[in-house]
Amino acid sequence: MPLDRRQKVVLESVRRFLRRTAFGHLMNLMAKTRPQDFSPIFDNLTDREQLQVFRALADRDQELGASFLAELEPRVGSAILRRLGPAGAAALLNRCADDDAAGLLAELDEEADAILAAMKPEEKDAVEQLLIYEEETAGRIMTPDVFSLHEQMTVGQAIAELQAEGDVEMAFYLYIVDDRTHLVGVLSLRELLLHPATTQLSSIMNTDLITVQVSTDQEDVAQIVAKYDLLGIPVLDEQGKLAGIVTIDDVVDVLREEATEDIFRMAGTSEEERHEPSILKSARVRSPWLLATFFGGILAAVVIGSREEAMQSFPLLAVFIPVVLGMGGAAGNQVATVLIRGIATGRIHEGMFARTFFREVGVALLLGLLYGTLIGAFCLALIEFGLAESGGVPSYWIAVVVAVSLASSMTLATIVGSLFPVLLEKVGIDPAIATTPFISTATDVLGSLVYVFLVVWLLLP
Amino acid sequence: MPLDRRQKVVLESVRRFLRRTAFGHLMNLMAKTRPQDFSPIFDNLTDREQLQVFRALADRDQELGASFLAELEPRVGSAILRRLGPAGAAALLNRCADDDAAGLLAELDEEADAILAAMKPEEKDAVEQLLIYEEETAGRIMTPDVFSLHEQMTVGQAIAELQAEGDVEMAFYLYIVDDRTHLVGVLSLRELLLHPATTQLSSIMNTDLITVQVSTDQEDVAQIVAKYDLLGIPVLDEQGKLAGIVTIDDVVDVLREEATEDIFRMAGTSEEERHEPSILKSARVRSPWLLATFFGGILAAVVIGSREEAMQSFPLLAVFIPVVLGMGGAAGNQVATVLIRGIATGRIHEGMFARTFFREVGVALLLGLLYGTLIGAFCLALIEFGLAESGGVPSYWIAVVVAVSLASSMTLATIVGSLFPVLLEKVGIDPAIATTPFISTATDVLGSLVYVFLVVWLLLP
Repeated sequence: MPLDRRQKVVLESVRRFLRRTAFGHLMNLMAKTRPQDFSPIFDNLTDREQLQVFRALADRDQELGASFLAELEPRVGSAILRRLGPAGAAALLNRCADDDAAGLLAELDEEADAILAAMKPEEKDAVEQLLIYEEETAGRIMTPDVFSLHEQMTVGQAIAELQAEGDVEMAFYLYIVDDRTHLVGVLSLRELLLHPATTQLSSIMNTDLITVQVSTDQEDVAQIVAKYDLLGIPVLDEQGKLAGIVTIDDVVDVLREEATEDIFRMAGTSEEERHEPSILKSARVRSPWLLATFFGGILAAVVIGSREEAMQSFPLLAVFIPVVLGMGGAAGNQVATVLIRGIATGRIHEGMFARTFFREVGVALLLGLLYGTLIGAFCLALIEFGLAESGGVPSYWIAVVVAVSLASSMTLATIVGSLFPVLLEKVGIDPAIATTPFISTATDVLGSLVYVFLVVWLLLP
Repeated sequence: MPLDRRQKVVLESVRRFLRRTAFGHLMNLMAKTRPQDFSPIFDNLTDREQLQVFRALADRDQELGASFLAELEPRVGSAILRRLGPAGAAALLNRCADDDAAGLLAELDEEADAILAAMKPEEKDAVEQLLIYEEETAGRIMTPDVFSLHEQMTVGQAIAELQAEGDVEMAFYLYIVDDRTHLVGVLSLRELLLHPATTQLSSIMNTDLITVQVSTDQEDVAQIVAKYDLLGIPVLDEQGKLAGIVTIDDVVDVLREEATEDIFRMAGTSEEERHEPSILKSARVRSPWLLATFFGGILAAVVIGSREEAMQSFPLLAVFIPVVLGMGGAAGNQVATVLIRGIATGRIHEGMFARTFFREVGVALLLGLLYGTLIGAFCLALIEFGLAESGGVPSYWIAVVVAVSLASSMTLATIVGSLFPVLLEKVGIDPAIATTPFISTATDVLGSLVYVFLVVWLLLP
């Protein structure tokens, strides 16, 4: 989205206030802007201006600063923190949600310790607690500020407690614990309101609980929350105690990230590309995947080169190399994509692999028949109209070789495209990894093998 | 996921109860199973058993039946409704959420009218109201049961109203309207509890509203909800009146669907593949996209064939066709993927297109230099070690032609891969559409052109 008129006005005002060091005006303006709407404006400021804005926020309104900081890409936000120095950074992070603060600090190296040391002790403890857990687990993305109540409380006490409590993140469910803070039930705010003040929570709470562990992978957490239409899911620690909740807004972010990751992986690059890295970095990320395609091409060259005399006797055959290999690659890629996404969303599961495989081979044979016939007809027409040399063998014979090669290439690529993701899934590797490059490598090798084999076997004397 | 031991036990029990027509036992079992957990079990029943289960639910426990129906794929659920007949289908749909019922009926043709006619009048009206809106708009996926209160009510009255009301979908926000049911504010349940019973809602409500129209595309709705971390978003009709809300669970479904759609489109197939269609249907869906690749291959054949004499003089050159075209396709695909996903998630926006383009060309030149050098070295080695014929020209000269061709092919494919999504976006077409086939077509044509041109220009006498 380009900046609209209103955003341009805001951008100009921010710049003007910064030039005049009119920080009071700047704070007023920012308080009236939603943090999410400020991001595109922020992107248009120079590095120096960005730092000025956050220095002003850190000095004057840490609450507001924290809400703007949370909306930046973690990489951008952590760069700001680094440049603000420990005191300024700590002032903002004290007011951030703990999971956001942990995410930002995880991007920093040695600076993180200095910033943590400058934070309020209780905030520091909460954030350090989260940093213990591995990245991309429930423990790392949960918020530890859970509103939990003892099971022996009454509805009236619960409401009083809720009113006394400060700001709790998304308190739509109340989590109910026993003496040892083991989670024993859950109650929605609305259910709470439907009962008289003297009712004990244990008698109305819902005990059919869906929970995850601190070590659960964030992708699994997201799948569970999405599947059961939850607004949040309680996270238990190793002792089965309530450690925090993962809220639906974090799940939405995870689902989008994971989809991006899959899409990037399938094309043979990685999610590191999301952060608009330098040209050199991009080249480094993409290069290994290209190597797969490169080896495929080299192997195809070796295969074709090993029967150079065939290509020399029938120069017409060289011209069909791109279509034979290209169609195989395209067909294999379609199949692999359908399978990979099906596996990722849970739609295609283990009991269906064999059925899916035979189904896909059927599709490939049908499409191979169609496009094989087309290429055969094209080949025949080229020779019949004198546009190409048949090299002394009957023209229909050459057409058959090309047609069968194309159909075989598509079928072989489909077999690879259906087996590859399933095998990766079985051995526990993300099936999305580098689909396109590997499919194209396999097709280059298998397609050129079958092509050369058919030419040598059927056409050479 | 394959069925685990517990699920297998449930499956066997369902079968046994059906054989014995022990429907009471069946209902007890189903009441104890979460609808989401029942789906994989349901998939393992025969068509006849599936129908039996839902006939029993329609006769004995419509509420339970509705909750199971809502968890099926719409295509599967609507097939069940068709076979249940109007009376049974209507009995279940009366208890479904209106948006779920509308989604199921939209999958049916003439049967939908008979089912609607058999539904309770008020449910029929609500569902028909939703069916007016186009598919994939906010109007179609919203729930019209919004809990709205008049701005002049007090907190005490609001709580009493909430307690009197039956089951409202995800009532975590209260929507506050004026005399003409125009939305004027919103209040969370928690905020409600924080104020004394006599406070008027208008004095505590939040008036900074984020809303969508009934006609807003569901993808845009999802982006807004995700961006502002909302749990639900009010939907306004053409007169600005509150027509319904889209809840976060629907948004999660939309985000996953749209990601699947993009992934499928990029590989040259469509979301119709999600429903495991017949082999013929799959072939029909994929075939048009393969046609693009096919034409690319045919054009490459024409280009290479037009200079057959070059390939005949230097048979070594034919063997490098796969690597020159394949590397171009892989590089173009990487770039296109990064751009398409960036555009879809809003990370890459209009002001950045030019910068992104030059950045990508830089990456391509770097990678082209790397892989061009490698292929040149390989080519030189082949000739020097006597494994291939140089056809009478200096071997380094052939190596240079192959190296420059490869680098040019990668650069040209990158240019296509960066421009193609941006142009589609500019003219309002989803950039994800058929990326891989079109990139491979463009690469086949441009790559073979540059290759043949360089061979003819630099090598032929």
